[in-house]
Amino acid sequence: MRIIKIINLKSAVAFLCLFVCVGILFMWPQCTVDNNEFSSTWKHSEGAKNLKQFEDISCQINGDYSVKCKKLNGEVYVPFTFLHKYFDISGKLVKTITNEETFEWAHCNARIYYPKSKYNPKGVFAYFENYSVENRDRVKCVSGIEGVPITTQWDPAGYFYPTQIAQYGLAHYSKNRTEPEPRRKVLEDGDGVVGEWSVPKSGGYAGRQYNEQVNSYVFNFHTSESQTVSFAMNSASSDYVLSITLSILSNSSLSIHINNTERGETYRLHYVCSRDLLNTQGNDFYYGIGCSTTWQTLTRDLINDVQKGVYLHVPFHKRSKLKLIKSKLKIISIHLYGSGSIDNLTLSSSDHMAMFYNAAQWLVNHQDNSGGWPNLVTRRITGSGLNDLQPGWYSAMGQGHAISVLSRAYYHSGNPVYLNAALKGLKVFRVPVSKGGVLSKFMDKVPWYEEYPTSPCLSILNGFIYSLIGLYDLLSVSPKAKSKEVTFLYEQGMSSLKRMLSLYDTGSGSFYDLRHVTLGIAPKIARCDYHATHVNQLLLLATIDKDSILASTAERWAGYVQGKRASHN
Amino acid sequence: MRIIKIINLKSAVAFLCLFVCVGILFMWPQCTVDNNEFSSTWKHSEGAKNLKQFEDISCQINGDYSVKCKKLNGEVYVPFTFLHKYFDISGKLVKTITNEETFEWAHCNARIYYPKSKYNPKGVFAYFENYSVENRDRVKCVSGIEGVPITTQWDPAGYFYPTQIAQYGLAHYSKNRTEPEPRRKVLEDGDGVVGEWSVPKSGGYAGRQYNEQVNSYVFNFHTSESQTVSFAMNSASSDYVLSITLSILSNSSLSIHINNTERGETYRLHYVCSRDLLNTQGNDFYYGIGCSTTWQTLTRDLINDVQKGVYLHVPFHKRSKLKLIKSKLKIISIHLYGSGSIDNLTLSSSDHMAMFYNAAQWLVNHQDNSGGWPNLVTRRITGSGLNDLQPGWYSAMGQGHAISVLSRAYYHSGNPVYLNAALKGLKVFRVPVSKGGVLSKFMDKVPWYEEYPTSPCLSILNGFIYSLIGLYDLLSVSPKAKSKEVTFLYEQGMSSLKRMLSLYDTGSGSFYDLRHVTLGIAPKIARCDYHATHVNQLLLLATIDKDSILASTAERWAGYVQGKRASHN
Repeated sequence: MRIIKIINLKSAVAFLCLFVCVGILFMWPQCTVDNNEFSSTWKHSEGAKNLKQFEDISCQINGDYSVKCKKLNGEVYVPFTFLHKYFDISGKLVKTITNEETFEWAHCNARIYYPKSKYNPKGVFAYFENYSVENRDRVKCVSGIEGVPITTQWDPAGYFYPTQIAQYGLAHYSKNRTEPEPRRKVLEDGDGVVGEWSVPKSGGYAGRQYNEQVNSYVFNFHTSESQTVSFAMNSASSDYVLSITLSILSNSSLSIHINNTERGETYRLHYVCSRDLLNTQGNDFYYGIGCSTTWQTLTRDLINDVQKGVYLHVPFHKRSKLKLIKSKLKIISIHLYGSGSIDNLTLSSSDHMAMFYNAAQWLVNHQDNSGGWPNLVTRRITGSGLNDLQPGWYSAMGQGHAISVLSRAYYHSGNPVYLNAALKGLKVFRVPVSKGGVLSKFMDKVPWYEEYPTSPCLSILNGFIYSLIGLYDLLSVSPKAKSKEVTFLYEQGMSSLKRMLSLYDTGSGSFYDLRHVTLGIAPKIARCDYHATHVNQLLLLATIDKDSILASTAERWAGYVQGKRASHN
Repeated sequence: MRIIKIINLKSAVAFLCLFVCVGILFMWPQCTVDNNEFSSTWKHSEGAKNLKQFEDISCQINGDYSVKCKKLNGEVYVPFTFLHKYFDISGKLVKTITNEETFEWAHCNARIYYPKSKYNPKGVFAYFENYSVENRDRVKCVSGIEGVPITTQWDPAGYFYPTQIAQYGLAHYSKNRTEPEPRRKVLEDGDGVVGEWSVPKSGGYAGRQYNEQVNSYVFNFHTSESQTVSFAMNSASSDYVLSITLSILSNSSLSIHINNTERGETYRLHYVCSRDLLNTQGNDFYYGIGCSTTWQTLTRDLINDVQKGVYLHVPFHKRSKLKLIKSKLKIISIHLYGSGSIDNLTLSSSDHMAMFYNAAQWLVNHQDNSGGWPNLVTRRITGSGLNDLQPGWYSAMGQGHAISVLSRAYYHSGNPVYLNAALKGLKVFRVPVSKGGVLSKFMDKVPWYEEYPTSPCLSILNGFIYSLIGLYDLLSVSPKAKSKEVTFLYEQGMSSLKRMLSLYDTGSGSFYDLRHVTLGIAPKIARCDYHATHVNQLLLLATIDKDSILASTAERWAGYVQGKRASHN
């Protein structure tokens, strides 16, 4: 028994170890740990091949500092993060349609617009149909009273900037020319279209009567304190431009309630009879619309009004999370408080011409006796050593853009008020900078129209070209008998441009201005988007003036956007 | 017996497998093949960590073409080979002293020389002690007759280029001022120093007599055809500048035999009485020295003479393997053929002043009646669309450099011939380009001195500044009574420079000329070494003119060499 047991035990152990040994025989090749050999799976891995030769290497940059690079098979690889800073170029990782990852290197991340036809001064202004002036961070909001943007760029309190107001007008004019017909839904016109207003049982009144002042049937309302005549939006509207003609007493207001379905919040826009630009309390946003005994028409981009309310106290760098998504916003209801009359309450997908005419009207109202649109802000040109421009300075770019607006307003409406304002705006082009105008003489020889009329001059390029386009616009819509002065200014300007244009060429981009020549300091290179603007401006001018310098410069400068550079000797 | 046998066999197997199993227990952890785990040796290898994340990625360049990049841990790495072409920058792998490999990125691989003191017009010219004009590939050789370089840059046949001849002179003058006293060994002076000449037993003669013409004892020789009076160099000389004064008959010659110990070849330099510049037959190199009845002094850089002989028929790109190493060359022997007299046969480590005076003398001999040094070569400015300059054109740079040489020659020797030639060289600065001179008016306003007097003008910067330095040199050595004209030209030029200098700033380098302004074509950027020349020139001028524009521009442009760039708006 004992022997059998022993035999069995040993057999068991023997078979067990035999089994294990056989297993080892199969596994052994895979266990050989040798630096130069891998299993068959490893051998086919690229990583394995690279393993030996991919290494860190220090890049000594101009003997000045070092950057961690990589070296592989004799080639040195440089990190893009460093190249971005050193060369001021852009790049980003993207996934292609096939879900493959690539890296998009962009020498200059700005768009060139190639004109399809000759520039039409009665049509789209440059490529401004792509501009959204009111959505710029520096725009505080669109004012309730004037219906034009207020900027905070050089003064956080906010101020009207003629150049910006004109761009606002030109952008909307251009969108009107390029976008499809807008959708319009009249909600209340006191006549054929009646809204379903809810009126408070006691202390509230609503009715429709003929009003002589506006020669129309209007909707009248009256409520006691804290009560409202309101209108619920039963069907969802995807249109957010509200237009309303109204005449209300000073303690009255119009409110729009808008729901953010993504966040589950409701914003309340209040258009109140105050001169305060914009106040906010939580989700209540108060726009002052002035109010007077006469009627006024408001055209409001409700999304913009809400967004600006949300952003009012939020610094730029914290705004991205608060950006509203149009499709998540729903207009819930419209409320009237106090006493007054309204007419033509409308919701549209856009109302570009109304916004355009707000800009044109503002320009007519705010032109001074010299024909200028004064910039009521202090302007410091940092790094130049120049004295600040004191509030009241004129800008050739502001004059030019304003003239572009007024020329279109005259063409579109036939109203000579706009033409006269535009013609009056020319006067400032004859006045030297030293006497408060915008005219300078580069190297005491070549006339220039200054965007910022400093002494010595800066001769900024893009603002000058915009002023030329404005002069061309006016030249094109003026009656011949009134076009002598604008023709002179335009031809003088174009002649200067052709003589001076090459001075702005850096061989790999363009200069923003000529401070390095006029002030003898370091040059100011045009940032990528400004360089693209130069190209776009020249492409536009090349369609109206056949001098080859315009087209050839535009072509060369467009090449610079793609990383091309002029050859060296 | 059988049972015991069985037990023993089984035990044996059992113990064997037990042993093996125990072995496995120790080995097992090292054999686990798992993508995330390696043996302890692998874990410590960086390569192993990188294996998973290091990948290829395609870089799309400006939406135009693609480059193979790498991606690791979210960072994209770009191959330097591409960056070199795209940005025109340099880089190379180097081993540090500690045998570590680094990559030296050089934005611009050219040297800036910071002056240690005010520029001295009687001393070193700029930093030309670093120049080796005769070693430039485009220099065919130093002519035997005149002792000045001949260039092939714009005509493969070779021609004298005043600018180059002057640079040759200035480089040797500068080396004379900066190098230690040369070693000189007189081998034969017909008097106190006698060489050990071997004279053929029959038909050969050698002797020393007093010669009236040179007022010195000289060494006379005469040999029959194919025989030679020769001098074996018994002690090795590490000095290769040969100087000899000689008067030989037209069928005579001087030969130097030089051995290349590295290649085991012998070169034979022959200075022959021909006007042919240079002929070669195998390792026999024939330099024409003209010969006349009067005496002449030759100063020859023997290494350069041999090198140019070796290179004569070899295109530039195949020359690197044929570059001679000084330490491998041995002068074996000196041979005289024919009849004649020699004096002061000397071997020196250098003889810079002789070479300088060869240049100065050439300039005196080749100045025309208008005071100009005509360039007898057609000059095409490629890519400019300008007409070629026909042979005979003057260059402000050539005039200026020549004046720099002559001013130093006058200062050093006191001989008014040099001063008068320099003063006469000023005339061309007053003559407009249209009338064959070098004076232009940029934008019809600012006087410039043209390196290449084209119409319209190019206004090259470096040549203009060299001409200013030449004017300054002459101004500094002229007697006051003769300095009015040069003072005017210098001050006019400096005034122009200060007004125009900023036009050459690209914001990241400098322009070579102003063709983009004067011709309205693409700019010509100064190549890295020319940009560095601009910096060096401005640094020099800043020591003699305190206007801050010179120093501040030099400083900014020096920053560009290091990859700095002007800021954008």
